[in-house]
Amino acid sequence: MSVFLETVTVEEAIRQVLSIAPSPKTGSVSLENAIGRVVSGDILADIDIPGFTRSVVDGYAVRHSDTSGASESVPAMLEYGGRIGMGEHAGPTGKPAGRCVYVPTGGHVPDDFDAVAMIEYCEQVGNEVLIKRSLAHGENLVGKGEDFRRGEVVLEKGHRLSPQDVGVLAAVGCDPVPVYLIPRIGIISTGNEVIPVSSIPREGQVRDVNSYLCGAYARESGCDPVLYGIVRDEPALFREVLGKATQECDAVLISGGSSKDERDLTASLIGEKGEVLVHGIALAPGKPTIIGRAENIPVIGLPGHPASAFVVLVIVVRHLLNMMTGDCSTKLDIVQSRALANIPSARGREEYIRVTLSDKGAMPVFGKSGLLNTLIRSDGIVRIPAGTEGIEKGDPIEVIRWQG
Amino acid sequence: MSVFLETVTVEEAIRQVLSIAPSPKTGSVSLENAIGRVVSGDILADIDIPGFTRSVVDGYAVRHSDTSGASESVPAMLEYGGRIGMGEHAGPTGKPAGRCVYVPTGGHVPDDFDAVAMIEYCEQVGNEVLIKRSLAHGENLVGKGEDFRRGEVVLEKGHRLSPQDVGVLAAVGCDPVPVYLIPRIGIISTGNEVIPVSSIPREGQVRDVNSYLCGAYARESGCDPVLYGIVRDEPALFREVLGKATQECDAVLISGGSSKDERDLTASLIGEKGEVLVHGIALAPGKPTIIGRAENIPVIGLPGHPASAFVVLVIVVRHLLNMMTGDCSTKLDIVQSRALANIPSARGREEYIRVTLSDKGAMPVFGKSGLLNTLIRSDGIVRIPAGTEGIEKGDPIEVIRWQG
Repeated sequence: MSVFLETVTVEEAIRQVLSIAPSPKTGSVSLENAIGRVVSGDILADIDIPGFTRSVVDGYAVRHSDTSGASESVPAMLEYGGRIGMGEHAGPTGKPAGRCVYVPTGGHVPDDFDAVAMIEYCEQVGNEVLIKRSLAHGENLVGKGEDFRRGEVVLEKGHRLSPQDVGVLAAVGCDPVPVYLIPRIGIISTGNEVIPVSSIPREGQVRDVNSYLCGAYARESGCDPVLYGIVRDEPALFREVLGKATQECDAVLISGGSSKDERDLTASLIGEKGEVLVHGIALAPGKPTIIGRAENIPVIGLPGHPASAFVVLVIVVRHLLNMMTGDCSTKLDIVQSRALANIPSARGREEYIRVTLSDKGAMPVFGKSGLLNTLIRSDGIVRIPAGTEGIEKGDPIEVIRWQG
Repeated sequence: MSVFLETVTVEEAIRQVLSIAPSPKTGSVSLENAIGRVVSGDILADIDIPGFTRSVVDGYAVRHSDTSGASESVPAMLEYGGRIGMGEHAGPTGKPAGRCVYVPTGGHVPDDFDAVAMIEYCEQVGNEVLIKRSLAHGENLVGKGEDFRRGEVVLEKGHRLSPQDVGVLAAVGCDPVPVYLIPRIGIISTGNEVIPVSSIPREGQVRDVNSYLCGAYARESGCDPVLYGIVRDEPALFREVLGKATQECDAVLISGGSSKDERDLTASLIGEKGEVLVHGIALAPGKPTIIGRAENIPVIGLPGHPASAFVVLVIVVRHLLNMMTGDCSTKLDIVQSRALANIPSARGREEYIRVTLSDKGAMPVFGKSGLLNTLIRSDGIVRIPAGTEGIEKGDPIEVIRWQG
């Protein structure tokens, strides 16, 4: 009986999950519901934006050369040539020299003018307008196509849409939006000690934390979690639920199975319908992780303890979920900080230590890594690479902040 | 005719929006759907967690004193006292001295033992177990109530739930979860030049970017946007739509109205059914912002240009939405950086300059603030306080990163 797992490096584990990640399917969604979705193709501007020269202020469109040398005491005096309403388009006036027209913010600046004087620096007296400042060519206007050129790529395939991106999609008339479909992630909780959240645990029992933790993490990662509940460590029952999950979902997370027997059961059931690729990662916490494939979809066996499972979600499973959502743009939220205490570490495995962040730096949260409370009372984790002895107080460090 | 708006400071504008923010209503949601929601009351642990002393490794529960001085070459020899299964609860064994029992990870450690030897350092030979390491009191176990004590506040009212928080809620049996209801934010787009996204703009016209930008921002802020479409600058029609929005929603954002006439119309319609509190903020971009109340709900008039509107959303409206969602925990995502170029600024108003971030620092995105492309090609904004002349190259600066 082998009690030591044959571990692979974190890098290798990530390579393995990426190698089995199914490609996302494509579809479309209305622009109104597109926030947070991932675009499945490059988005091009269908027109020049703006489609005409626009004023960015309320004021008078002029030829800038007519304002040369103008000042408060010696204003330029131009003939008032009328007013352009919002949404109106004015043809060339023919005789722009010495004339001006009123243009509201966002209004069209006729082609024969090349600057706009802010109304704050103008005074209209009957049919004449005094301009009290000298203007530069192009001042206070945006030229046709200056924001986006027709045919230009405005957003690239694989980009997750922010509010600003949604605004840009509106500008280029992209509704509905081509997006990747949301992957379904099956979640199975195992363990004879695990009971439903609605129950009061007897001694020896614990509530099913992992289903909800994994489900919430999947949802936050842009996936749809499907919870299959708690499965006791009985091969027939477990096999049935895993079969259902692999049929209905695009990937399966088996949470729990914290003891060696349970892990072995998970691995053997994955093996029955596919293959186990990784059985143990040189990672603390998170060593007893299984990466495999059943019925041709990825199946990940997470450590039983929620605090360990969460590190594996953030460090390894995240890559799988991002790939499955088609998301090429989301990165870990990393901030530069400084260690406020020594953080010793065992060589030979990558270690993640929870820290709290302040202006002063990052303070390691010592104490048992198995505690849930350290997950919500820390701001993120610090990676200690395999092969190093830890971090010294004062060392610059990178903190991976918890999202959200 | 007053052409200069009477502006208030950003601080005062924020004070005003907070003063009119309606309190969020309370309700509940299933734990499965609780991610991202805001808890409406303190959440207490209903039980000690764990509810019993748990092993954090696979191994043998022992009295640590029995392993004193044990090593690879001189192991301690203990009598094998059986095996505790997952989910089982074992009473005191009565005679712990010189004995040990096998406990899986997460299993119950009987009260008369005080440490667990990892299986990797043990060897079972018939009815005896060799322990090859000396153990400290409490090693490899988590005591009853060590994670959370019964009655302890695990999450505070007003906290927006992360995946880890959802895990903790599962542990304390909190399902359904008491949460604030999601506020409905009405969104009205105005302007005679504004046309639906599905149309091709003629010269002088622009597509309705603001409805989607504001809607996506509201959604990302935990609100439900309700889009009322585009309203032309006709008082009767505008009055009708605003009346409907104030009836159906908890707050209204009027986007557009970029010219002075349109702003005045927005302000007068708000005034008809309530009051205008702010008409202009000393903020660039974002000066022509209106803050008011109609039919007793907050109504915000945003600048017409999307790039300006977005800065007002992030700097001012965000406070309103957070307050309405009951969210006390979400902060701006601020990183410390360094200016890679001089950033001049006009005194007398708070200014926000878009920047791109790299390892080297923050590079201002110069060029016209009215361009949409700078919103998606920047990483965030830098605040230049009112009354300063700008930032010098090399100065340390705080960058407010765009979310998501």
